[in-house]
Amino acid sequence: MQSFEATTTLSMTEAEAAVRSSLAEQAFGVLTEIDVAANLRAALGIERRPLKILGACNPNFANEALDLDGDVSLLMPCNVVLTTTDAGTRITAVDPRALISEPKFATLTQDAADRLRAALAAIPAS
Amino acid sequence: MQSFEATTTLSMTEAEAAVRSSLAEQAFGVLTEIDVAANLRAALGIERRPLKILGACNPNFANEALDLDGDVSLLMPCNVVLTTTDAGTRITAVDPRALISEPKFATLTQDAADRLRAALAAIPAS
Repeated sequence: MQSFEATTTLSMTEAEAAVRSSLAEQAFGVLTEIDVAANLRAALGIERRPLKILGACNPNFANEALDLDGDVSLLMPCNVVLTTTDAGTRITAVDPRALISEPKFATLTQDAADRLRAALAAIPAS
Repeated sequence: MQSFEATTTLSMTEAEAAVRSSLAEQAFGVLTEIDVAANLRAALGIERRPLKILGACNPNFANEALDLDGDVSLLMPCNVVLTTTDAGTRITAVDPRALISEPKFATLTQDAADRLRAALAAIPAS
């Protein structure tokens, strides 16, 4: 799956604060949050490595994309995923160009990709 | 965008209750909810047609998919979208086979697609 990636020695809690801040600097709000490990523990009694999905959305991009085709809502928001690693935390963000590949969205998805890449690049390595 | 669709003369509130119930019958929980119209009103001062995105997840499918490849979390949960129409409400659900096209997920995404299709088919037309 095409994505952007950052790794940091920050804890998952610290890394989440950093990623929320750097997403905000790129005008992406976080609209949803799924604690996948907690959900699967509750639903199935299974222990998994910590995994959290943040749903990030830039309202201007969302509004313009919906004007082009309302069914783009089937693919929103953009997931930003945090997992723990032995060295700290890994953060990945879906590449909007891969998620929404129709040519009419190309300018919007390129802009969104640039901003998500920048948001991840701004996360401190330690 | 490849999707399943249902239309009903139910109001959006009634249709949301119906879709949550029929998703539950197919063992899909709703983990996230985005009132897109309210978000864009708050962020941009723009009035749009009511639009709500529910993030649906079947914990067994999610667990098996994560075992195959943790990066599938970039594409979870499955969106189920409600919008108003002149006649009532339109409900669409993303087709998991289009969302996650890698062959190793084919059995899981086929099962998930069958269940989402069945969930939408169970929504009363009026």
